Amino acid sequence: MIIVGEKINGTLKNVATAIQARDTAFIQNLARRQVAAGAQMLDVNAGTLPESEPEDMRWLVTTVQSVFAVPLWIDSTNPAALRAGLEAHQGKPVINSVTGEKKKLETILPLAREFGCGIVGLAMDDEGVPHSAQKRLAVVETIVNAAARLGVSLQEIYIDPLVLAISTNTEEGLIFLETLRGVKQHFPEVKTTVGLSNVSFGLPQRSLLNRTLLVLALGAGLDAALINPLDPEMIATIRAVELLLNRDEYCMEYLRAHRQGKLSTN
Amino acid sequence: MIIVGEKINGTLKNVATAIQARDTAFIQNLARRQVAAGAQMLDVNAGTLPESEPEDMRWLVTTVQSVFAVPLWIDSTNPAALRAGLEAHQGKPVINSVTGEKKKLETILPLAREFGCGIVGLAMDDEGVPHSAQKRLAVVETIVNAAARLGVSLQEIYIDPLVLAISTNTEEGLIFLETLRGVKQHFPEVKTTVGLSNVSFGLPQRSLLNRTLLVLALGAGLDAALINPLDPEMIATIRAVELLLNRDEYCMEYLRAHRQGKLSTN
Repeated sequence: MIIVGEKINGTLKNVATAIQARDTAFIQNLARRQVAAGAQMLDVNAGTLPESEPEDMRWLVTTVQSVFAVPLWIDSTNPAALRAGLEAHQGKPVINSVTGEKKKLETILPLAREFGCGIVGLAMDDEGVPHSAQKRLAVVETIVNAAARLGVSLQEIYIDPLVLAISTNTEEGLIFLETLRGVKQHFPEVKTTVGLSNVSFGLPQRSLLNRTLLVLALGAGLDAALINPLDPEMIATIRAVELLLNRDEYCMEYLRAHRQGKLSTN
Repeated sequence: MIIVGEKINGTLKNVATAIQARDTAFIQNLARRQVAAGAQMLDVNAGTLPESEPEDMRWLVTTVQSVFAVPLWIDSTNPAALRAGLEAHQGKPVINSVTGEKKKLETILPLAREFGCGIVGLAMDDEGVPHSAQKRLAVVETIVNAAARLGVSLQEIYIDPLVLAISTNTEEGLIFLETLRGVKQHFPEVKTTVGLSNVSFGLPQRSLLNRTLLVLALGAGLDAALINPLDPEMIATIRAVELLLNRDEYCMEYLRAHRQGKLSTN
């Protein structure tokens, strides 16, 4: 699976402080630790006010990529901040995210074409997040068709079926998994991803629920996930599931993680 | 899911000692702890020599059921020991197990008919454990048809697709999951079960692999599993996956387990 590190996010207080203070060492250290833990891509979200967000995003992208050649997910709802991040990025970035909302499709998809980059598509539209897999798949179809019309390669689209808080509705896990299976079936060239942490909102032992949902999702064909790679139990679980799904030849990664003390979390 | 406790097994040294010494308190305590941890059924395996096994099995069944009305899986390859256990059992037991081997089908299936009980069918035959899901499903078909001809109800058949050591062949997880999905598809009335622990043979952090495979299997439709309910991380994982698969209304079991300190395993 593709691990996308979620920690460089300005909605977290210490990251916001580091962005404001232009604390290069803090941000680079957060990047380094996530890559060392196994992240192949990093999400960067400035999370700041619209006026300063483009400049903050530009600084974040440059600060991370000046020491790590890791591809970034440029995470914003603000087209100006997305453009600033995309301009600063070396290599091929991913835009996080577009939705089926008419205005988003019109403003954000052209950026994907202009910069020749990947894009995350969330299964929601102007009506919000649909309550059934069938309706979410209809939104996915809208996004995929609109992106394809603009010449975005299907292999560079990451669809997030979305998972909402299971404390509010215990059907949310099944709706998510059914949508995920539907995307894999109807759009086999498209990649899938998920931001896990919503599922456990309002419940205790959130990491347990998040990593268990990740196993279910990988079993249903998930390709990538936005996770906290600094959570040792999450990484141990990923090593186990990758081995069980025959993606770890000769058990090499599993045994390496064991030697590094990364499987035992007690 | 149906949790079947695996701890009363005479191949474990302290259990063997307790059987030999007729240590009623030890066996009843092992039963009590598994039921308290969430087991709805208990496997009993005397694991002793053929001469003493029938009497040992009779003693185990009587000893457990004199204090707990829990249904037992009578676990032996010895027809005489199975008969002794079935005769001693109150309520409806499960025979663990039959295979597609000609001799097993002829000697063990009639016991299921005679005692009107359930039966575990392992996806292996006289040639051993097939290396493909397709061949395992052919064995399953043989077992299900033979049982049905004798009048065993399909709902009382538990098919174990079998999982072998992933350290020997990293495809074993996928073969198991594909067989499991095939059983659910082709024999929707039949139940499925698995003895998980083979998968992790020869590898470190066995519990991590066992519980991660359980999540994948439950996601693929597994109904029951022979597990160690005294493994706290296994139980925490089961509470999480049951909630995520919408089998825990209002999150009640998950929150109860949290209040009892059963979700935090660090």
